Amino acid sequence: MKKECVFCTIKKEEKILETKHCYVYPDKYPLSRGHILIVPKKHYESIMAMPDEVLFDVIKTVKLMEKRLIQRLKVEGMDFRENYRPFVPESNLRKAHIHFHIIPRTFKDMIYRAKGEIKRKEISEKDKAWLIKKLK
Amino acid sequence: MKKECVFCTIKKEEKILETKHCYVYPDKYPLSRGHILIVPKKHYESIMAMPDEVLFDVIKTVKLMEKRLIQRLKVEGMDFRENYRPFVPESNLRKAHIHFHIIPRTFKDMIYRAKGEIKRKEISEKDKAWLIKKLK
Repeated sequence: MKKECVFCTIKKEEKILETKHCYVYPDKYPLSRGHILIVPKKHYESIMAMPDEVLFDVIKTVKLMEKRLIQRLKVEGMDFRENYRPFVPESNLRKAHIHFHIIPRTFKDMIYRAKGEIKRKEISEKDKAWLIKKLK
Repeated sequence: MKKECVFCTIKKEEKILETKHCYVYPDKYPLSRGHILIVPKKHYESIMAMPDEVLFDVIKTVKLMEKRLIQRLKVEGMDFRENYRPFVPESNLRKAHIHFHIIPRTFKDMIYRAKGEIKRKEISEKDKAWLIKKLK
């Protein structure tokens, strides 16, 4: 556990789910409604550093959460992503503690077609509570 | 196997690696040098449709290939992604046969910061042969 790491110190009560090796949380700056993170409990910095057992737990959790997003939030599609960018200075753009995104997508959204950076707004307490309840 | 599916009918000799349940190929329209795909042998359309055994094979192969990309191509970082977009008409933008991308990244590349669509050029035979040899 690293004291300065946002995922090592995140409030556990804001979790959607807990498995043996990971937590599921709402993304703090969601790209779309239902944007969630799968975060290993331990501070790994890459897929390469993760034991197979933890990787298997993560990917099974992704499968479970994708099913819930479809069943409960009626999402139309999803992007699954993880970024390993040790070259970026620690910032909002990079968290060293590995985390996997599931980002609900629709045909008409403009994510990735946006010109330049997308402005991401912090999720409200109300929306966060709704999402946690919905996906628990 | 689906006759009309590009990944069911891809030339097997162009593979980088074969595991029990998947192949690794160079991406046909790479976003960066070393952009590869991990493709299950069977035609699954989503993570949700994949048996755990196949999912575990895929994620272990991602781990292996990320190590090789760092060791052999000296890449500085990588994006790992999979897109489930059943709402998009079958096209260059969507292949129903699931595939997982590993996209090497550098601090200075402009991927995702580009305005609008990125023009993706087909990989040359020479570059493809080089990449297969390098990562085999």
